[in-house]
Order: sequence, then C-alpha cells, then structure tokens
Amino acid sequence: MIRGIFAPIPTPFLDGEISYDHLAQNIAKWNKTGLAGLVVMGSNGEAPYLDEDEKVEMWAFTRKHLSADKVLIAGTGQESTRATVRLTKKAAQAGAQAALVISPNYFKANMTPKALEGFYTDVADESPIPVLVYNMPGNTGLNLSSPLVTRLSKHPNIVGVKDSSGNIVQISETIRGVSDDFSVFAGSASFLLPAVVMGAKGGTLATANVVPDLCVNVFELALAGKVEEARAIQLSILELNALVTAKYGVAGLKAALDMVGYFGGEPRRPMLPAGEDARAEIRQALEKLGRVVK
Amino acid sequence: MIRGIFAPIPTPFLDGEISYDHLAQNIAKWNKTGLAGLVVMGSNGEAPYLDEDEKVEMWAFTRKHLSADKVLIAGTGQESTRATVRLTKKAAQAGAQAALVISPNYFKANMTPKALEGFYTDVADESPIPVLVYNMPGNTGLNLSSPLVTRLSKHPNIVGVKDSSGNIVQISETIRGVSDDFSVFAGSASFLLPAVVMGAKGGTLATANVVPDLCVNVFELALAGKVEEARAIQLSILELNALVTAKYGVAGLKAALDMVGYFGGEPRRPMLPAGEDARAEIRQALEKLGRVVK
Amino acid sequence: MIRGIFAPIPTPFLDGEISYDHLAQNIAKWNKTGLAGLVVMGSNGEAPYLDEDEKVEMWAFTRKHLSADKVLIAGTGQESTRATVRLTKKAAQAGAQAALVISPNYFKANMTPKALEGFYTDVADESPIPVLVYNMPGNTGLNLSSPLVTRLSKHPNIVGVKDSSGNIVQISETIRGVSDDFSVFAGSASFLLPAVVMGAKGGTLATANVVPDLCVNVFELALAGKVEEARAIQLSILELNALVTAKYGVAGLKAALDMVGYFGGEPRRPMLPAGEDARAEIRQALEKLGRVVK
Amino acid sequence: MIRGIFAPIPTPFLDGEISYDHLAQNIAKWNKTGLAGLVVMGSNGEAPYLDEDEKVEMWAFTRKHLSADKVLIAGTGQESTRATVRLTKKAAQAGAQAALVISPNYFKANMTPKALEGFYTDVADESPIPVLVYNMPGNTGLNLSSPLVTRLSKHPNIVGVKDSSGNIVQISETIRGVSDDFSVFAGSASFLLPAVVMGAKGGTLATANVVPDLCVNVFELALAGKVEEARAIQLSILELNALVTAKYGVAGLKAALDMVGYFGGEPRRPMLPAGEDARAEIRQALEKLGRVVK
Repeated sequence: MIRGIFAPIPTPFLDGEISYDHLAQNIAKWNKTGLAGLVVMGSNGEAPYLDEDEKVEMWAFTRKHLSADKVLIAGTGQESTRATVRLTKKAAQAGAQAALVISPNYFKANMTPKALEGFYTDVADESPIPVLVYNMPGNTGLNLSSPLVTRLSKHPNIVGVKDSSGNIVQISETIRGVSDDFSVFAGSASFLLPAVVMGAKGGTLATANVVPDLCVNVFELALAGKVEEARAIQLSILELNALVTAKYGVAGLKAALDMVGYFGGEPRRPMLPAGEDARAEIRQALEKLGRVVK
Repeated sequence: MIRGIFAPIPTPFLDGEISYDHLAQNIAKWNKTGLAGLVVMGSNGEAPYLDEDEKVEMWAFTRKHLSADKVLIAGTGQESTRATVRLTKKAAQAGAQAALVISPNYFKANMTPKALEGFYTDVADESPIPVLVYNMPGNTGLNLSSPLVTRLSKHPNIVGVKDSSGNIVQISETIRGVSDDFSVFAGSASFLLPAVVMGAKGGTLATANVVPDLCVNVFELALAGKVEEARAIQLSILELNALVTAKYGVAGLKAALDMVGYFGGEPRRPMLPAGEDARAEIRQALEKLGRVVK
Repeated sequence: MIRGIFAPIPTPFLDGEISYDHLAQNIAKWNKTGLAGLVVMGSNGEAPYLDEDEKVEMWAFTRKHLSADKVLIAGTGQESTRATVRLTKKAAQAGAQAALVISPNYFKANMTPKALEGFYTDVADESPIPVLVYNMPGNTGLNLSSPLVTRLSKHPNIVGVKDSSGNIVQISETIRGVSDDFSVFAGSASFLLPAVVMGAKGGTLATANVVPDLCVNVFELALAGKVEEARAIQLSILELNALVTAKYGVAGLKAALDMVGYFGGEPRRPMLPAGEDARAEIRQALEKLGRVVK
Repeated sequence: MIRGIFAPIPTPFLDGEISYDHLAQNIAKWNKTGLAGLVVMGSNGEAPYLDEDEKVEMWAFTRKHLSADKVLIAGTGQESTRATVRLTKKAAQAGAQAALVISPNYFKANMTPKALEGFYTDVADESPIPVLVYNMPGNTGLNLSSPLVTRLSKHPNIVGVKDSSGNIVQISETIRGVSDDFSVFAGSASFLLPAVVMGAKGGTLATANVVPDLCVNVFELALAGKVEEARAIQLSILELNALVTAKYGVAGLKAALDMVGYFGGEPRRPMLPAGEDARAEIRQALEKLGRVVK
C-alpha cells in the first residue's frame, strides 16, 4: 500500500536540456528526508514538455539514485489509451513502482464518466505496476467525481487517487466510498491536514519539494492525533504553498528550490521563469519559515 | 462571541403564507437540541421570496419562541447599502442578536473588493448589532476572498464570517489572517470537521435543521480532540447533506424535515417542491441514519 | 409587435435620491432620437437598488414625459412569482406597455428549466401587459436556453426575449425556433449587427443611452441590406460599449452620459462611481466617436 | 492570403490504425467540392491521439492526394515550444502550406498573455510556413484575447487566427484590430454568417466535412451581400453542427460522415464511438437537410 508524503519533483534544465548532475544532487538531499518517495513526470516535472525518451531516462536515473526504501511513482498519463499503456510499461521497466495517470482531457465533450472509466480500466488491465488515478481539474478543466473514483477503486490494479481539486467534500465522499486499503492522497499541501483528518493516506505535494520536513510533520502529527500542533504547521505553510502552486506554478516552485539549497533552474519554453516580483514574494514566504539559505 | 452550531431555518408556508403555528412547533423542537441558535432569513429561509414586513415578523416571532439561551441571527443582506442598513436596524429592534449579511452580487462587474469593503464597513458602522459576513458563491456567483475578509475582521462591529464556499484552503487562510475572537463558521455540514480542525468556531448548517444532534456531536468531538469519532459521524452525514443543499436545495431540506417530525411544507413559487425521486433519495439517506419517523 | 432600438435608462440620483428634474431633461433628449422606446428598471436602472414605490414612480413619470409614439418597457422581474406579478400589475397601471422580466436566479440549484418555465408562464398568465423574457447570465449566473425560450414563445402573452448572453449561436437557435412575430432582441450593442443579420427584431442596449443614433443606424442599415456600412459603425462602437457594460457597468454608463450632455451622476451604494482611470478611458472612446461635449 | 472554407478532417481508423485507403477515398470526394482546402491534425483529426510519425505521414499522404489548387493546413501545436517548432518544420517538409497552432494550455497559471506571445513569436520565427493562431477555449480551457491576437498579427509570419470561442464580440474586436490581410477564421459553422458579416475571411468548420457545399454557400452568399439567403442556410445547419461539435464531438462527426457517403469509422480510445441515441439524432438532423445516403 502506498502511503506517506511524496514530492512530485521538477525536472532540472540547463540551457533547455535535462541536467542529470543537478538531479542527482537534488535526489541526494531528498533521500535524507522523511519523504516516502518521489513522483517523476507529474505536472511539476513539466511532463508535457518532455519527449518520451527523456521521460524514460528520468525514471531510470531517479530509481538508480533514489534510496531503496523510497518509492518511485511515474507520471505516465497521455491523451490516448495506447500511448498511456506504452509509456506505463516503459516506466515499469525503468523501475517505477507505481504509475500516476492523469485523466485525458482535451476532448472534454467526449470524456464522459463512461469514457474515463474505460480509459482507466484499460490502462490498469495492461499496466505491470499499480495505478494511481490523478484528478487535476485546475490544469485539465475536468473533474473526476467521487462516484467515478469509487467505481475505479474496485479494480485490483488501481490502488489510489491523487486529488488536487482542493474540494474537501469530494475527497471525503471518496474516502467514504472506497475500502480502507485504497490510498486517497491530498494533491496539495494546502489541504493536507484536513485531508488526513478525513482519512487520506498521504499526499503528493509540490511544497514537499521545498520543505519536506514540514509536510511530513503535518502528516505524522495528524496521524498521532496532535491536531493543534499539526494545525500550526499547516497554517504556516499556506502562503508558500500558494506561491509555488496556484499563483506561480512550476516556475515559482523552481525559484523556491533555488533559494533553499536545491537546484531549481528555469522551466522549458513557453513557460517563463518567475519574475523579480514573484521571487521577492517567494523569498519573503520562505524567510517567514526560516528557510532561505541564499 | 458567537460560536457553536446554528440551524438556518426554512420558512414554513401553508398555501403560500407563513404558518406561525408550524413555526412555533418547529422552534419548540429545536429548543430541545444542542444548537447554539437559529438563523432566520438566511438562504434556507427563502429570504429573497419574503417581503420586508414578513421578515420582521419572522424575527420577532422566533425571538419570542426561542429559548432565552439560544442566539437569534437575522439574515439582512440586500443589494443596496441603504436597504441593508434599514433591514438590519429592524432586525435588531425585533430582537435579533446578530446580522448575517450576504454580499450584494447582481452587479458583478462593479462588486470589486473595494466596493464590497465599502458595503460591509457602511453596514457595520450603522448596525446596532454585530455583523457576520456571509460568503455564498454557489448562489451569488461571487466569492469573498480571504484578504477581503481579513481586512473586514478588523472592524469592531464585524465579528465573524459564514463561508459556504466549501473551499477549505480559503477557510484556512482566513483563520490564519483573523484574530482568535473572530468567528469563522463553516457554511455547510459537509466540511464541518475539516473546518473545525483548522480552527472554525462553529457552523451554520442546513443539515443542522434535520439532524441537529449529529452536527453538534461532530463539533464537540472535534473540539475534544476525538477526531476518529468525529470523522465517522462526519462521513455518515455527507449524503443527506448533499441532498438538502447542492442537489435539491431548500425544497430538499423541507422534504427532509417533513420526514423526521418537523414541518417542512412547500417552498414559494417559482421554487418547486421536491419530486418523487428526490423524496425517495432523501428518505433513503435518512433511513441510513435511522431517522425517518414518517 | 415590439421592435427597434431601446435604451435601458439609468436612474439619475442626487445625494442618493431620484432626481426627476434630471430624468425629465434626459427623456426630452431621448425623445428627439430614433429610439423605439425606453426600458425603465432594467439592470442599467439599478433596479435592485430601488424600492417598489420608487420603481412605480419612475414608470409613471417616464410615461408622462416620454413621446407618445415611443414604447415604455418596465423591468419587473423579482425572485418570487408573487412579487413579480404584483410589480408587473403596478407597472401596467403606471403606463408601461410591456414588462421585461429577468429570470429569478438566487436559488440556482432549484431554478431548473421546469421551474423557470413555470415562473414565466405564471407571470404571463397574470400580467395585463405583454411579457419579454430577459436572459442576463453575466449578472444572474444562469442561462435561459434556446429550447426553454422556444417553449415560452408559444405563450400568447410572451412576446419576445432580450438575450444579453452574447452567445450568437444561442440567439440564432432561438430565432430558428420561434415564430416570426416573436421579438428576439440583442441585449448589447456589441453584437447588434450579427444579431440583426440572423433575424433579431431590435435591441435593448446600454450604449443606446449614449449614442442612440449610431445604434439606430446599425439597425436600419442592416435591415436595408447595407452590411458594409453597418459593419463600419458596429466596429466603431465596440470599445465604448465594452466600457459602459462589461468593464465598468452602470458606473461607466453614467460617466459616459455626463460627458455627452445627459445627466449620469453617481450610482447608489455599494456601487462606486467610475474612477479617474475609467473616466479617462471612456472619454477617449467617446472622443474617437467625436462625441464629447464636456 | 488564406481564405475560404476549410474542413478539419477526422483521421480514419480501422482497428485502431490509420486507414489510408479510406483517407484517399474521402479526399477524392472533398476534392470535388468548393472547399478551399483541408486541415489535417486539427482537433477533429484526433491529433492528441496520434504519434509524431503518424502525423507526418498523414500530411504527406494528404498533400499527395489533395487537388493542387487546394491548400493543406497542418495542425502542429504542442505544449512545448521546441516540440511545436520541430513538428511545424516536419509539416512544411511534408508539403503543408500553413500551420495551425493551438495554444499550449496545460500549465494554465503560467500561460499568461506574455508567455503565449513568446510562444507564438518563437514558433513563427522558426516556422518555414505561415502560422495561424488557434483559439479553442472549449478544449483548452484558455482564451486568446483580442489584444493578444492583435499584437501577434503584426508578426510577418503569423497570417491568421482560427477562433472557435463562438464569442462574436471577441471576433469583431479582433477584426477591428488587425489589418485587412490578416485572416480571421470562424472556428465553427454555427456562427459562420455572423463572422463573415463582421469581416471574417473564411472558416475551418467540422461541419464542412459533412456538408461542404452548404458551408461554402453561406460564405459566398454572405460575400455577395445576399444575407437573407445566407441566413436561411445558416439556420438550417445549426442543429447538425451542434451534434458533430459541442454535443458529440469527433465521435459524432465520424458517425455523420458514415451516413453521407464518406468513411467516418471509430475514434481511438479512450474516445467512445457515438451511441445509438446519438446516431439517431444525427441521422434525423441529416434527413432534415436531405443528406442521408445510408
């Protein structure tokens, strides 16, 4: 069973190409944290900007450098079923232990609950590794409802859902609907405590790249029933979280990493690096947390 | 300070006119519960369907029949500042102890944060009773942001906010921004536990009309740190809550009340009473909670 | 049959009270234009900010001062059926020749097509004057679909629809569905020509308050098949139209009127008057049209 | 200059693989129509479901079979600038005369007007063939505004825009802003006449696959100033258009093609073929137009 706090890591670029040296350095640091593992080629990995070969290389390299006790989850969702299955098989071969599969979404009129159920069922049938459903309406413009996720949870090879909707009622309804060994994950640090209180088994959190210890603390304190302590940390990370997700996205996340001793770097085009104002805001939020190192 | 669980009561109609007999019977039953008080002329009271005189009469009658230890909150928000001030003064005279003021929203292009801040400041300046800000984007199509509510919280006569957005991150950010004597209230039972865990001081919950004890239990267990017990009840009321709010609205709420020994009755036109299918769904949800009496 | 270009007039206020002197002056000027009539207590009249008595007085006064050959349409829609019927009867008594009835919208979950059909049927049954359906999703957050309007068009006392959605496909579908004596009206000058080309019988246009001649020109040139000339004027008024509707709303409209020799004045609170930047933009748009007089 | 009516053709699949025989048959039929050309790998081509090699082959094959006097436009937009440039160069090599480039959209928070302007400028700088901007908010969840498109229109290698928003005001504002040799194209047959009346130079229309003659007629009648005749045809195709676009998408379009003598076939997974009810609706709409052949 997949549980705990995962960081969906960004892809480090130098002059537009993947910098494996910097990736190795980042992984070495994340290895020393309480993170349960890494997600490679999630949204924060700029997956839509990488070619298939690059993705496979990223997984293989990460698995090689990641501590053996940490789990590697590969983001493998594509628009078509065939491409998703193909990529998921490659991810498994490259050493990923689970696949995080975002919903196809371009043809919104056609992505009915029935079509989406067919998609996830087909992928899970073919996948050599367990599948996590990924609901990311902010980027996809499409929501995976609780009834749909509940139905999918009955597939033996679908083991969890990452819900980034921020809709705590939907997350609660999903938890009510699924069995206890199905992993409902918070998709953002901004609602980690509420999700865990309602029964979430962990989170895949952009902010966990930057302040993994604080995210792990919220999770563990919540599980230990120390709600007041968990709340204090949860409230303290809201501002940073907003800056590296909704407000400035991956560009903000990379800027934050650069400030706390990881390598962030620039995103690939057309995404623009965080501007001066954004960096100042991010720096200020990190300073409030006592985290800026440069 | 206003805290605890409130029921925003529906208005009982017989042949389109307010039935005070049935209102008295309902209040007598709510008096025996752990509710902190009632909201009269909130959304669930069909406030937009009542004339000004009817609203004043509803407040006066309720105050007279409500236990002295329970708080009466009056829903007084109108589109214009002048009408809101006038109605709030009448509510105070009729015995209301606080006013719940929904945001004006018809002129969405003009209801900028600055205009809304002016509105609430003007109303709070003139109101003889404390003001609660009411954020109800599902009905108004307009959201009151955390920064706006945080600014408003500094006004000495603005004492709280009812947030029905369901956005737990926004609710968390508001709690982080306001001082501890400002009452952040959950606006729906569907996220009561998460809100209280994050620091909410209570809730104004449609579902609290129907199963006041369960809502009070969630609140008190959460405050006592008994998160697991609170969660079990919280999960159990999600289905009923959806039916009497988002799915069937006031019509669903009235149907549910009719099934558990209160008087619900029909809404005013153009709202239609709950149909057969809706009633069957509601009955089933109540049966799962062991609550149907007829 | 109702056809031609109508101006939905703003309500002139001095120190928050209706200034009938300024209203008389404005009407005297509109009397000299090619407008087919005026709408009094539409959105631009700040209808939600006026009490019932004020509305009735506005209709009676306008009817008295408006040229006998021009049509007075009264905006009478309220949230409840009973209040709408009551107000429509008063409008008829005050001299209005038709009622423009906005959709009830607060209880969005309950305002199903069936409920809305019931509402308009009930109102039309009781109304002494013909009813125009008013679709204004930008303010109401609710759309009246073509199938619904087509069904309503069969009622003998429902004679037209003002569609402010800007959705030219929906307007086209409605025109295809209704009989030729049903008046489909453009709800904004920004799509007047496209709507007339598709078969609209006129428009109720905020911009027609400010530059009535240009709006009438577009309409008449389009009917005469002079599409190129109509297009040139249509394109020329887009900028002004955006400023007095979507961007600055009634506040912008009032500022524009003040600049071209009408009385605009300030809106009622909580709406704020147009700021300096807005006024500069509006002035510039009017100057491009050669219309500023002060 | 690119002008006239284009059909964005679907990709014919047999058992999930491209059927070039059927493609050749379809092209032979379209060659005999008044279409100005074809768009290959637009939304209706299921572009997100095809691999890069398949796309290149589709372009080369189509260019070989398409009449020399008809224009081949290739849909080449990808999420990253580098992939879009690479694919656009391959399209040019394969014989495409212009590239239709959809906006990147996954990282919505980062796709600011500035980022999008950078993207299109970079692509147009590198592209060997003229670029058409493609605005498709219904699928992308992101709108390209008139001011942005107006700025882009000044680039010497950006020659037009396909606007599928259906927002006739935006289309009008763009036409007002660009020079007369920039091609503003309607993105759907549902608003072809209004767009042409406002100055559009043509359209890229799913419906033009099925009833190319009717679409060409609307266009030519509108240009000839025969508005009434154009309107009659425009109104007649609304229903079919809705079924093969918004309501049933590519699956509906393929079903319609199968009914009128072209090969439609099934879409790739996860898109499901049109169901029985959808087919019955489509057949009925075609019958009203007198077009069903089987």
